[in-house]
Formats: sequence, structure tokens, C-alpha cells
Amino acid sequence: MRIAIDAMGGDHAPGEIIAGALEAREVLGDEDELVLIGDEQVIKTHLHKLGADAGAFRIFHAPDVIGMDESPVEAIRRKPKSSIAVMAHAASHRQVDAVLSAGNTGACVAGCQLRMRNLKGVLRPGIAVVIPTLHGPVTMCDVGANIACRPINLYQYAVMSSIYAKEILDIKNPRVGLMNVGEEDAKGNDLTKKTRELLKSDPHLNFIGNLEGGDVFEGTCDVVVCEGFLGNVILKTTESLADMIFTAVGSEMKKQNILLAWWFKKISKDVLKKYDYHEYGGALLLGVNGISVIGHGSSKARTIKNAVLACKKFADKHINEQIVERLSQTKVKTNGQ
Amino acid sequence: MRIAIDAMGGDHAPGEIIAGALEAREVLGDEDELVLIGDEQVIKTHLHKLGADAGAFRIFHAPDVIGMDESPVEAIRRKPKSSIAVMAHAASHRQVDAVLSAGNTGACVAGCQLRMRNLKGVLRPGIAVVIPTLHGPVTMCDVGANIACRPINLYQYAVMSSIYAKEILDIKNPRVGLMNVGEEDAKGNDLTKKTRELLKSDPHLNFIGNLEGGDVFEGTCDVVVCEGFLGNVILKTTESLADMIFTAVGSEMKKQNILLAWWFKKISKDVLKKYDYHEYGGALLLGVNGISVIGHGSSKARTIKNAVLACKKFADKHINEQIVERLSQTKVKTNGQ
Repeated sequence: MRIAIDAMGGDHAPGEIIAGALEAREVLGDEDELVLIGDEQVIKTHLHKLGADAGAFRIFHAPDVIGMDESPVEAIRRKPKSSIAVMAHAASHRQVDAVLSAGNTGACVAGCQLRMRNLKGVLRPGIAVVIPTLHGPVTMCDVGANIACRPINLYQYAVMSSIYAKEILDIKNPRVGLMNVGEEDAKGNDLTKKTRELLKSDPHLNFIGNLEGGDVFEGTCDVVVCEGFLGNVILKTTESLADMIFTAVGSEMKKQNILLAWWFKKISKDVLKKYDYHEYGGALLLGVNGISVIGHGSSKARTIKNAVLACKKFADKHINEQIVERLSQTKVKTNGQ
Repeated sequence: MRIAIDAMGGDHAPGEIIAGALEAREVLGDEDELVLIGDEQVIKTHLHKLGADAGAFRIFHAPDVIGMDESPVEAIRRKPKSSIAVMAHAASHRQVDAVLSAGNTGACVAGCQLRMRNLKGVLRPGIAVVIPTLHGPVTMCDVGANIACRPINLYQYAVMSSIYAKEILDIKNPRVGLMNVGEEDAKGNDLTKKTRELLKSDPHLNFIGNLEGGDVFEGTCDVVVCEGFLGNVILKTTESLADMIFTAVGSEMKKQNILLAWWFKKISKDVLKKYDYHEYGGALLLGVNGISVIGHGSSKARTIKNAVLACKKFADKHINEQIVERLSQTKVKTNGQ
């Protein structure tokens, strides 16, 4: 399997990204190839610094970088020699089987959506992210690929995320819920009401009904389906709130007892390790014809290694083949929704 | 001022609610009257038990109660003798100046929306909730009154919440942000793009632009404008996540050191006190012709007392009069949006 890594993307690029590629290289077999994408000279210098054999990687030269704050679609079009654009191009031309980037999320999604085609039967790709909770991992889709969702898009996200949760997270019969403002059937807006009917009509989905915001963390579901606008806001809000709570408690502890603060810091680390998105490597752009992992901007070497392993598992479990097969068999119509 | 309290609404009703009314009574002046709504006999028994003078309150008899899980609009119609329906009726007939309930939120909002009229110029009321953060209180509107928002609704929420944040939370020139999936102008869906233009066009608003989910807790804004569907999900998600974090850290502490766990519990309480929604009494239904406070289901006596004081402050600061005046002067058109 050939996996391309955007060496220039992320807050800790290229150092941590290339270090992560090295860590991944060590656990991959000979049948796998890692491709580093970015400024060739910069990559070689880093490999040399890390004492690595430059020959262990293919390098696709990409002298440009898309900054974290650049407007995604525009940047992809204006910078064809950026690492993300070169990466998406390589995927679309089947030069690689999987791509991963911790760079500008929007640009990465836009690049993959523009260049890689959709899987047969998929109308719009969606970003699936795994949220660690006390009750186990919860897969939420979409978190920002598609901010003008139709019911059929949400239905397809349910199908794709179910397969993902089953195969990658080893959840036998994933409970799928639809994010809403109340549990009753009648609750919601036009989009959720219509989506609910589609989800109910598919006997192969373990659809448990409407969710409320709290359900994400309360162990009631394994898959949360929502439109990209909503998922994006939920994800960013929860990340920020978690930060705020740890900061607030930590500073209160410091005030009361410095030893306590030290303990809290240590224990926070243990807790955060358990609920650690680095474990999952990144979010999956489900529905594109290929494998595309979108890493968190703060990805470290370990995150990149895990992202590479996620690509492997995704391919080994034939997720895309299963998605195509399921969508070809469903009786839920794709027209008029 | 005459303030009606739904004695039967909330997880701790009627005991805590009536106890809260007593606490409020002690700090109110003679010009203020508290009205308790609910089963007259039950209320009198509780007042007696609390050693209170039953004559200190007027009682509006309402033998029915709307349960926390009942479908709001239906329940309001089917149970005209429920405490919430009687409360809304009293408000609409100007028998009281303000109403507050910690009961079924949906029913309370529906009752007030159905019975009380809107303020002159207001198209749709919105629920404004105050979220305590490390950087100070943030007012978010709407969190569930209106799940099919038009741009003009969001614009009016911005105007009303700004006045609220300025007068009630003493924030001089509240920074208003629009919840979105990115900060750039071009980001968002049709609703946010159109709303952005309206917000920008009003020079009297301190509009700071688009927000992302994280901004709620990062001190970048004082007012968050969003449609009710989104606000509702944000609110419920964050409440649940905060619970999860305190539980996770607490149980980890217990594992490592029981004394530590004890300290953590104590400090958590201190922290939670600082970020305590009980302080604010409840959410405001902004835009109705009157004052309507929607309390959290878990309201205690202290919450109810604070809610009564919130009603007083709301009236003293002439929030509604200011809203009507501002909307009469704005050049933002209400038609066609």
C-alpha cells in the first residue's frame, strides 16, 4: 500500500510529521510504501537530522505550502504546487492509495473533494471524527465537509459511519442517532424530520432515533449523524470547553495547594491520554474514492504514525468496498431528497 | 411589580421553588408582589411547612402539571389548567408583569409565545442564556425558541442580546459574534452569510464578525448569535461534556489517592460555583411583551430567588422599552429577509 504524507502540514511540521513517518515506517511491512510530499530539500535535511535513510521514502516535491489561515478552495486553485494540492493530485492519479495531512483542514478536504472522485453511489463525502468519551468512542459525521446537507447526504453518512465504527472501532452493531433538539419524533427542522424517515426506512441500520446534544457524551449512541455546520461547531466548542475546564480547575488547585496542582497536572495527563484524539490519527473523509485522513493541526509524530496505521486498517477492512456494496443494495432512493 | 412563579415546575418542585419564593420575598420591597401558581392546597401545605405566612403570596390555583417529558405545544393546549398554561394566561391578561418557571422548557416557551404577544417590531422571540466562562459571562441567543430562523430573526437576537448583556451583565459595548464554521467572510451557509450582511449594516451593533465553536469559551465575544437548533445542541453538549470531565477526573483521582479525590471534590465545587448558572436564575425569552424567565430544570431555592431578582432588574433597566426603541430606529429592513 502507498501512503502519502503531507510533510508540510500542521503546527509542528515538518519536524514532527517526518518523525512520525519514520515511526510508521518501522512498523510497516515491505509491501508498504510511504511518500513524503513537500519541499524536497527541507524533507531531506530533516531526514538527515533524524539519522534516517532518505532512500526509505519516496519524495514528491512540492515547493509551496498552504497556510493554516488561507481560504481553502482559493488556495488549492492558486497553489497547484502546494503540498496539499500535489497530494490530492497524486491521489486522483492513483500514484498513491491513501493521503494524510495535518495542514489546513479546509484545503485538505477541498483538495480531496475536487481531485479524488466520490465512491460509486456516494453523493457527498463527509468528515467522520472519533470523539473519545467515558463510555467509549463515538463517531460523528459530518463535521464540516458539507454545510448544505440534504437528507440523503445524512442518510449516507449514517451508512458509511456505521461501517466505519463496526470495522475500525470494533463496535458490533453501532447505534446510530440523529442529532436534534429533542428525542420525540416530531422534533426538529425540515432536514432532521426528513432524514429521520430515511434512517427509519433502512432495516440494516441500527437507528435509535433522535438525539440531544448531551447524548454525545452519555453513552447512548455510537454514531452521531449531523450536518457539517452543526458537527463543526459541536467539535470546536467541546475542544475549547475541555481546555477551559482543565485550566479553571488547575488554577484553582494552584491557589489552594501547590502540591495538589502538581497531582492534578499529572492526573489530567492520564485522563487526557484516555480521551486522546492522537490515538485515532485523524478524521476520515468518508465517501471519496480512496483514503483521506485529515489530521488535527496539533498532530505530533505519534499522531502521524497512528494516522498511517489508520489508513492501513481502513484498506485492510475494505471499508470503501463495503460502502459501495451497501449503497448499491439500499432501497433508500437518492433522487428527490 | 407582580412576578408569577410556577410552583410546580422543575426537578425540585414544589419544595425548592416555594422556598426560593420565600427567599425572594425577603429581599423584595413592599411594592412587589409574588404570585405562586399551582395546586393551592399543595402550595399552602408547603408554605405552612416552611413556617411562612400564606398571606405573603397570592396564589393562582392550577390543579394540573405538565410533565418534563410531555410534548410542549400539545400539552399547553391539552392542559389549560396546568401551572404553565395558567401562568402564560395570567401574563397575557396583564395580571402579572413577569413569569418564571423551571418546568418543561418547551411548554414554557410555547405557552409564553402563544399567549403573550411579541414586543412591537419583534418578529420571533428568542431564548437568551448566559454561559459562564473563564473570561466572563457570554450571552447566547437563540437556544431553542426558533429552530427555523431567518436572517432578520438572528439580527433581532443580536440587537436584543446586546441590550441584555449591556444592562444586565454590565458589559459596556458587548462584542457580538455570529456562530459559524470559520472566521472568513465567505464561510458559512446561506443563513449565516445573509445574517452577516444584516449585522454588518447596523453601525449601532458592535459586530465582530463570524465565530467558530471555540470562541464561546475563549473570551473573544460577549454575545453569540445563532439559530435555535444550533444553540440548543451547543448548550446541551457543553453541559454534558462538563459533567463527563468532572466525573472522569474525579474517578481517576479516586484511583490514585483518596485524599486527592476529596480535595478535587471540594475544589470542583468552588470552580462550579464560579461558573454557576444558578447565579443567573435562568434564561430569558427575549422579544415577548412582558418578562419570561425559563429556569433550569434543576433549579434550587437560590436559583428561583435569583430568577426573581433577574425579573426585577430586567424591568428596572427597561430592557423591553429599549428593545422596542432600538428596533423602531434600525434601518435594517424586516421584509424579505
